[in-house]
Amino acid sequence: MSSEARKIYDEAIVIDGLNVSNWESDAVFERLRTGNITAINATVATWENFVQTMAHLAAWMRRFRERHDIVQVKETADIHAAKKLGKTGIILSFQNASPIENELDRLGLFLALGVRVIQLTYHETNLLGSGCWERNDCGLSNFGVDAVREMNRLGIVIDLSHVGPKTTMDAIEMSEQPVAITHANARSFCGHPRNKEEEALKLLAEKGGVVGVTSFANFLPKGFDSTVEDFVDAIDDMVERIGLDHVAIGTDSTHDQPLEFWHYIASQQGTKFPSTFADGSVPYTELSFQPKGIDSPAEFPNLAEALANRGYRAEEITKLLGGNWMSLFERVWSV
Amino acid sequence: MSSEARKIYDEAIVIDGLNVSNWESDAVFERLRTGNITAINATVATWENFVQTMAHLAAWMRRFRERHDIVQVKETADIHAAKKLGKTGIILSFQNASPIENELDRLGLFLALGVRVIQLTYHETNLLGSGCWERNDCGLSNFGVDAVREMNRLGIVIDLSHVGPKTTMDAIEMSEQPVAITHANARSFCGHPRNKEEEALKLLAEKGGVVGVTSFANFLPKGFDSTVEDFVDAIDDMVERIGLDHVAIGTDSTHDQPLEFWHYIASQQGTKFPSTFADGSVPYTELSFQPKGIDSPAEFPNLAEALANRGYRAEEITKLLGGNWMSLFERVWSV
Repeated sequence: MSSEARKIYDEAIVIDGLNVSNWESDAVFERLRTGNITAINATVATWENFVQTMAHLAAWMRRFRERHDIVQVKETADIHAAKKLGKTGIILSFQNASPIENELDRLGLFLALGVRVIQLTYHETNLLGSGCWERNDCGLSNFGVDAVREMNRLGIVIDLSHVGPKTTMDAIEMSEQPVAITHANARSFCGHPRNKEEEALKLLAEKGGVVGVTSFANFLPKGFDSTVEDFVDAIDDMVERIGLDHVAIGTDSTHDQPLEFWHYIASQQGTKFPSTFADGSVPYTELSFQPKGIDSPAEFPNLAEALANRGYRAEEITKLLGGNWMSLFERVWSV
Repeated sequence: MSSEARKIYDEAIVIDGLNVSNWESDAVFERLRTGNITAINATVATWENFVQTMAHLAAWMRRFRERHDIVQVKETADIHAAKKLGKTGIILSFQNASPIENELDRLGLFLALGVRVIQLTYHETNLLGSGCWERNDCGLSNFGVDAVREMNRLGIVIDLSHVGPKTTMDAIEMSEQPVAITHANARSFCGHPRNKEEEALKLLAEKGGVVGVTSFANFLPKGFDSTVEDFVDAIDDMVERIGLDHVAIGTDSTHDQPLEFWHYIASQQGTKFPSTFADGSVPYTELSFQPKGIDSPAEFPNLAEALANRGYRAEEITKLLGGNWMSLFERVWSV
């Protein structure tokens, strides 16, 4: 690797917009340090209800006490501190609103515990709206509209990655704060239900939001044959569509997860695998869902070099690696 | 009252398709006996989750042990037995699928406890679909389609009274068993979001379903000025629309309920009153929501006389009072 690319990387705040690895694995945290990742948006819950999620949060509180290689991120100053200390900042997040069940007051409870990003729906229908695998999606429910308002008021980033097309548009239109798509690509770049439609990407950017381009193999045109170069193609594509200031990274890393994890996340409502209407094609036996060259966070510096080789300038690389996430978090979290 | 009408009434199996009274009130049960009601479809849950619903079911198990004026109805033979014994048969039911949360297996658990009627949604969105107060309704979710199949398989009657228009149509179309609207009138008879649209009523009847015409004041054209004669107008209207064999009674009785009950049932998701998008006009300070002349189940024999005066024959009155419910239950419960 060129020393210049390495220098850009090491000076940058590097944020992975979505990581859903096995948090009981020490190796997961060790690779993050090897790769000098400044902070990750760490998934606490996908289908879990309130009580199940509280158990996961309790486990995180234990990790924050016991692990010396992580710090909890509750505000952007904590990310700067993580960088300075050489630790990994952990932004707690949900990929579903299922943990709040039917009580919006729980948003404030989760905020107090440091949950700063919540995805409105996950694949299927919940009380807020519909997910991207639903047979129908007609947008936010009454409760969903109120949830958006409350997340705006509290300073919780709204994530729309797995959200259905109409619910996505409703949320972008109704949110008074910029929103995030933490881990998805453009549907016309790679035709998969998890990738997002043009109108959503455009309107999100117009309103100041950020898209984390994802390196997850299923959402790249070459799938499991993808390399870091193919991931940079996806970044190029998104930069061209919505402008560099609105583009970041969200790997959707799933390291050290067992087979049961894949059955769970690809299920219908956390209880039935595969879902009736999803294609059930999750290739959960693959060892890695990440492109060659950036197979794990340990190899993430390679991304800086690939971006530099593609002609991105230092300040652009810095924005893509984490600067744009920082700007969004700064704006939404500081309400 | 004419002795003939009284004779028809006393010989009939009289079933109230929906009663959501205060089950801790002795007077509620005493009035049912005074009125010689054979069985009621008794609401166990509206917004409750699994654990909350289990507590209500435990209370019902206690009542079945302790009260000598009721019997639990698990099959139609239990209704015949209630008639013979001069007790009130209690059909346990939910007005929302919220108690199953995200696990369809719980349908079988509830069935084992005697829950034989479940309404798919209540006013707003749940995991199955949308309710009649939602800003949008695009029909059953993936999970909702599976729930309909499972209820068909288990022999649980699907109730669509508070369900949104598209979710109602989806359920009628997809259900392999006839379905019920336990307590609603026709939208064109009385323009209220809780009353049902023509296409739903027609298709439900074509497929063998039954509609419980409701005497709840808000869903009658004259509202709180309604009398038993106005209720018979609603019955006439429904008979004319879908045929007498598909028409029954569902009072939506709410006797002895405190103010908090009204706030709860008219809330958004059980937690916010009033809902953002509902009209919030629940006149919860009224003492009675039932028409003069049949203000309580104790006065229900008056309905037989009013029907006889309107020209209904004895066998028609018997069907309307409960015979049509019996036919539906016999068919759906005996799968």
